[in-house]
Amino acid sequence: MTGPRLTPLAASLPDTVPFVGPETQERAMGRPFRARLGANESRFGPSPRAIAAMAAAAGEAWMYGDPEVHDLRAAIAAHHGVTAAHVVVGEGIDGLLGVLVRLVAGSGDRVVTSLGAYPTFNFHVAGFGAELHRVPYRDDREDTDALVQKAREVGAKLVYFANPDNPMGTWHEAGVVEEMVAALPEGALLVLDEAYADLAPAGAVPRIAADDPRVIRMRTFSKGYGLAGLRVGYAIGAPALIRAFDKVRNHFGMGRVAQAGALAALADQGWLRDVQGKVAAARDRIAGIAAANGLRALPSATNFVTVDCGRDGDFARAVLRECIARGLFIRMPGVAPLDRCIRISAGTPADLDVLEEVLPQALRAAAG
Amino acid sequence: MTGPRLTPLAASLPDTVPFVGPETQERAMGRPFRARLGANESRFGPSPRAIAAMAAAAGEAWMYGDPEVHDLRAAIAAHHGVTAAHVVVGEGIDGLLGVLVRLVAGSGDRVVTSLGAYPTFNFHVAGFGAELHRVPYRDDREDTDALVQKAREVGAKLVYFANPDNPMGTWHEAGVVEEMVAALPEGALLVLDEAYADLAPAGAVPRIAADDPRVIRMRTFSKGYGLAGLRVGYAIGAPALIRAFDKVRNHFGMGRVAQAGALAALADQGWLRDVQGKVAAARDRIAGIAAANGLRALPSATNFVTVDCGRDGDFARAVLRECIARGLFIRMPGVAPLDRCIRISAGTPADLDVLEEVLPQALRAAAG
Repeated sequence: MTGPRLTPLAASLPDTVPFVGPETQERAMGRPFRARLGANESRFGPSPRAIAAMAAAAGEAWMYGDPEVHDLRAAIAAHHGVTAAHVVVGEGIDGLLGVLVRLVAGSGDRVVTSLGAYPTFNFHVAGFGAELHRVPYRDDREDTDALVQKAREVGAKLVYFANPDNPMGTWHEAGVVEEMVAALPEGALLVLDEAYADLAPAGAVPRIAADDPRVIRMRTFSKGYGLAGLRVGYAIGAPALIRAFDKVRNHFGMGRVAQAGALAALADQGWLRDVQGKVAAARDRIAGIAAANGLRALPSATNFVTVDCGRDGDFARAVLRECIARGLFIRMPGVAPLDRCIRISAGTPADLDVLEEVLPQALRAAAG
Repeated sequence: MTGPRLTPLAASLPDTVPFVGPETQERAMGRPFRARLGANESRFGPSPRAIAAMAAAAGEAWMYGDPEVHDLRAAIAAHHGVTAAHVVVGEGIDGLLGVLVRLVAGSGDRVVTSLGAYPTFNFHVAGFGAELHRVPYRDDREDTDALVQKAREVGAKLVYFANPDNPMGTWHEAGVVEEMVAALPEGALLVLDEAYADLAPAGAVPRIAADDPRVIRMRTFSKGYGLAGLRVGYAIGAPALIRAFDKVRNHFGMGRVAQAGALAALADQGWLRDVQGKVAAARDRIAGIAAANGLRALPSATNFVTVDCGRDGDFARAVLRECIARGLFIRMPGVAPLDRCIRISAGTPADLDVLEEVLPQALRAAAG
């Protein structure tokens, strides 16, 4: 046997990591970043109550977590005014997207997303052999009309739509999303990725009946709650769809420490409000730094700001490279025309001091 | 749309949890168990150094974990005398088994296991639509000859074999496993589940070249290291197979707290040796309690003892039910003839006091 005997689908897939972690870059550079503003993590950290809950749970880590995730699901349900039967908890939105794609989209099935939207969703679609169709952004926002039209055209089973959007930070008002749901073709399920909803204006969060079979919403503890390193996300949807996750999910995948940390984080809404205020202030300062350098910051409903570097993708990539070389970890959109931008996560005042220092240097180096 | 539009495979799967958690039973009973000896968790807990590392990492949980799991993989590689290219870390052996089955066994592919062996492996095989073939245990041990013969007969791509075995606790000597590897038919990959190897006599752990493409070994921090609630397992295999995990794994699935806890646990081999001693003492005491009740304990190379209740499955199920009703959480094998036994995890002296008190009462109630 010369190599592993993979399935034809597995053999066809590349063995690449969709995102290179900052740790990999730090190992290559031989030094840590001065500011870590590339992964839209919450520089303001998790609630001290969540930290205490995780520390307390560490001593109990010899026990498997409750496979039904009972207490956390109940708390999430109460928070959103739904029942626990509408909620499934999983290993981050990444993990939940993987299970959802597996359940719904196999070989020959069509899936629709936006050209330049979240790559990990595309990774799962390819990983289960479904066919991905992409529509362009319009004015740096996901184009809800085009998504619906393409879904109708190809008979899509899944339509991925992030609101607020990543990597652009832009958003649609609730009414637009509600119209989008109403216009979905029969049999299409809207995957509404609301990872950044905790940081968005209230007007960006649509009202969708929890029993609506046309939509599944994804939320996370990784962004507003500052627990990216704990891996807890959840989905809200009609009970028949939520129940289907039990068919294939990793039932003991949610550990005891993770469940305890998320539960305590959810209970501390005061901390979340404080973070929202800090994020808003950081967005304003990033936009100010961009303007001081002659660049335009896109409006953002997230914990990051996408900054238009005003030229083409090659220029933005050079700016990114020069920022990284100066110890500033940021990322950027992967495809044109979005790739004329760089993406900067909200940071502490000290982080943004680094941005203020490094950005003009990087722009000069990229232009020179 | 009346229900979710699942793939034909997903629609065919039951939406059941393979194991009911003790928390579910506690909620139903309205009170906690007096002793938790059902899930082969380590009642002796994780190393205090691992607890401290998790607590320290909790404050850094705002950062995603390194998607390459660099430091932990390097430490595991050093521990086993292999390179990091031979090691993949994942969300417990459960998670790794799921990825492995997905990579190798799809519709029409054949997989072999033992009748009554680890149900979660079977869950994954069904979940990816492969065809499962089972061979009976022989003398309460997995039958290595029969596994190889069946693999040859059906042209299996995967052969699952746990050594030491769960749920029986029995094992084969290293030489038998090495002969099994040598006898595998061309193209069959042996999935050697060594979850309990840290608690087994040295003679039960075979020597297998890390580059051998015929075997992938699975290990975990859930048993000897006492970190079931952290969800960290790893696989050791030939680099070409290990690299294939990158095709589909949840790249950010290993959180920062989990990586930190496992790294510290691995570094504290003194704690593991201490646990091994406590487990051995507990096994002896469980066997003694069984004998005092006229029952035979099977020899065990794990952190649990399987006790033959001496009659049929209905009787053992009644004993189990009566133990649970008395606040003692234990489990038992699921299929005949293994199901004449109950399975009791190693516990603290206080836990085993509960066993000593409850077992005779349960036996009387079951017989009565």
